[in-house]
Amino acid sequence: MISQEMLRLGRQSSVIRAISEYGAKRKKEIGAENVFDFSLGNPSIPAPAAVRDTIVELCETLDPCKLHGYTSSAGNMEVREVIAESVRTRFHAPCEAGLIYMTCGAAASLTVALHALINPGEEVVVPSPFFPEYRVFAEKAGATLVDVPCHQPSFALNLEAMEKAISPKTKVVLLNSPNNPTGAVYSEESLSALADLLRKKEKEFGTEIYLLTDEPYRELYYGEGTVPWIPNLYERCLVGYSYSKSLSLPGERIGYLLVSPRCPNAQDVFAAVCGAGRSLGFVCAPSLWQLVVGKLNGLTSDVEEYRKNKDLLSSALSEIGYVITPPEGAFYLFVKSPEEDAYAFAERAKKYELLLVPADSFGVKGFVRLAYCVSRETIEKSIPAFRALMEEYKK
Amino acid sequence: MISQEMLRLGRQSSVIRAISEYGAKRKKEIGAENVFDFSLGNPSIPAPAAVRDTIVELCETLDPCKLHGYTSSAGNMEVREVIAESVRTRFHAPCEAGLIYMTCGAAASLTVALHALINPGEEVVVPSPFFPEYRVFAEKAGATLVDVPCHQPSFALNLEAMEKAISPKTKVVLLNSPNNPTGAVYSEESLSALADLLRKKEKEFGTEIYLLTDEPYRELYYGEGTVPWIPNLYERCLVGYSYSKSLSLPGERIGYLLVSPRCPNAQDVFAAVCGAGRSLGFVCAPSLWQLVVGKLNGLTSDVEEYRKNKDLLSSALSEIGYVITPPEGAFYLFVKSPEEDAYAFAERAKKYELLLVPADSFGVKGFVRLAYCVSRETIEKSIPAFRALMEEYKK
Repeated sequence: MISQEMLRLGRQSSVIRAISEYGAKRKKEIGAENVFDFSLGNPSIPAPAAVRDTIVELCETLDPCKLHGYTSSAGNMEVREVIAESVRTRFHAPCEAGLIYMTCGAAASLTVALHALINPGEEVVVPSPFFPEYRVFAEKAGATLVDVPCHQPSFALNLEAMEKAISPKTKVVLLNSPNNPTGAVYSEESLSALADLLRKKEKEFGTEIYLLTDEPYRELYYGEGTVPWIPNLYERCLVGYSYSKSLSLPGERIGYLLVSPRCPNAQDVFAAVCGAGRSLGFVCAPSLWQLVVGKLNGLTSDVEEYRKNKDLLSSALSEIGYVITPPEGAFYLFVKSPEEDAYAFAERAKKYELLLVPADSFGVKGFVRLAYCVSRETIEKSIPAFRALMEEYKK
Repeated sequence: MISQEMLRLGRQSSVIRAISEYGAKRKKEIGAENVFDFSLGNPSIPAPAAVRDTIVELCETLDPCKLHGYTSSAGNMEVREVIAESVRTRFHAPCEAGLIYMTCGAAASLTVALHALINPGEEVVVPSPFFPEYRVFAEKAGATLVDVPCHQPSFALNLEAMEKAISPKTKVVLLNSPNNPTGAVYSEESLSALADLLRKKEKEFGTEIYLLTDEPYRELYYGEGTVPWIPNLYERCLVGYSYSKSLSLPGERIGYLLVSPRCPNAQDVFAAVCGAGRSLGFVCAPSLWQLVVGKLNGLTSDVEEYRKNKDLLSSALSEIGYVITPPEGAFYLFVKSPEEDAYAFAERAKKYELLLVPADSFGVKGFVRLAYCVSRETIEKSIPAFRALMEEYKK
């Protein structure tokens, strides 16, 4: 018998994938312009032209053996220096190139971190709703995932619930802000309070609790300034990042995991990250892409386009009568289902060619997620469909 | 406490890395041209110009959202079709795109395969010497690694020893041919005999035994025709491949794992591979590189240059009096240490600025590995040093 758990995971059809496959079929039947597909978090804004120019320049000027050669497992040191310097400048925080591990994207950042930290039977606490793969990653690392519902309808952290959930087995608290699926951004106040809580619990239990933050949407923020830099609030912190959304490179698998130098055992944690990367089969992150993000550090795709989409879709849906969570970041709109069962709502929406994802698989009932990383035209044309859909509930 | 096993792996200094770091230091001290560094298996022949041209063409003609977007987890179907067709044509073997999983290189091919197949406590049997990371990958997947010494000095498979090693716990036999570190290529006869043995053992124990082949050096073969296509000899077979060596792209992390359609439970094995990839954090292989290898399938770097290096180095060392294993593939020369302790020999070689890797960490004592993927000039200039080194043993 092969691994039954891996077989189960490989066969398990994701709700998102099922909807997106239905969408592909429907687009063939009636034309892509007539299907309003809000199912996938795949950037619709192209990578900046500088990405192409940088690739071409690297290919034309660098010795191919260097350009395409192995970097050290943790990545090209010059690239890591660039990233460290940008963190120091932007967030007024200590950051060391020697504590940055370049990864094959956000998923790899999380798996290497979890395998580095977790001993079998420990717990990973996650505010819900959360990206469903977190459960898969945590369980593969030997942990049990403990989900802690956020306040509704703001989807802010519920600190009382967090306090109840944190146990002597808690090894990692995993945060995702700006959040997929809600678009919520956890406030600095709530994160400070969480940091205090974790320090208190560490003392109470005599344990170490690590805060692992998953930040692929860091640059997709619609508030003032930047989202809080969590290592400034809590010492035992690891930050996972990916350029998938900020530079519109989701398929290229490039990101990093950094260990905060304020973490008391930062060197050991970093060594364990290297050990985890090695044993999971991550040799180095793709070398060309390391160089590209090193050269283009700080650049993003035109994220203002997502803001315009958000504003248009939010105000239209509110005006029609949908209850939405005002998104502060990422490119998702979280909408309350007008009927209790979000699956039934999403099914009904299909009649109007609206493809929405019920948020049940994200760990919360009664909501749908709309990925508004689509063309402006799709949003504009979808509004009458949303209106007609709501009419059904007003009858 | 963080994971002590990951910490150990992260801290463990690789013998190869230690020598290569010594080499880097020494090159600074006395000039790179005076150090004969045979430590690293990093291709010295550049990627073909077509790689650069293809990248530039893709960047200039393809919609960036498509070029850099997510592919399906298993990879771009058109690329997988190209690979399947080439396997069918070249090896006269069945091959299905739907059973090919694009990976972030050879290491990822092996880890996803092992995690898909292994249940805790099972065994992975490996002919030795073998690439040391195999042990790390197998143990992380929950298996015990059982190594089976090859015949010396040919380093052919020892079937009697294999028969003794295969137990009811054997889930995977892992082969690497052309072999790192010996350069040996397992003959079709020995592989057929191994296949018979595995089928016999499966019956005897009522178990399933999978043959997993790691073939990054497939194209670096100095014999006639091609190396044997192992799925033609054994049904329950998975083949891992990487373009790292054949196209000189080691840092770019692109390869594949295929499940033979002759494997009775091929669909389940493939689903488990997808589940393993998902849970280890492999979302898709880098999308640009998938397209590049799809377009350039069948092309290799100028591997004749490695043949010339091999011929030059083999004949010179033999003439001096070293006992070598005539290499049939890869870019490694396996040399018997003139004294019992290969570490002592490698240490003594340093006096002559010769950097050789003792093969102890590959699981065999009394040999060193020379990676001859270096410049012709390095080989030519190294010969007097090898001669002087041997003089010490003739005194």
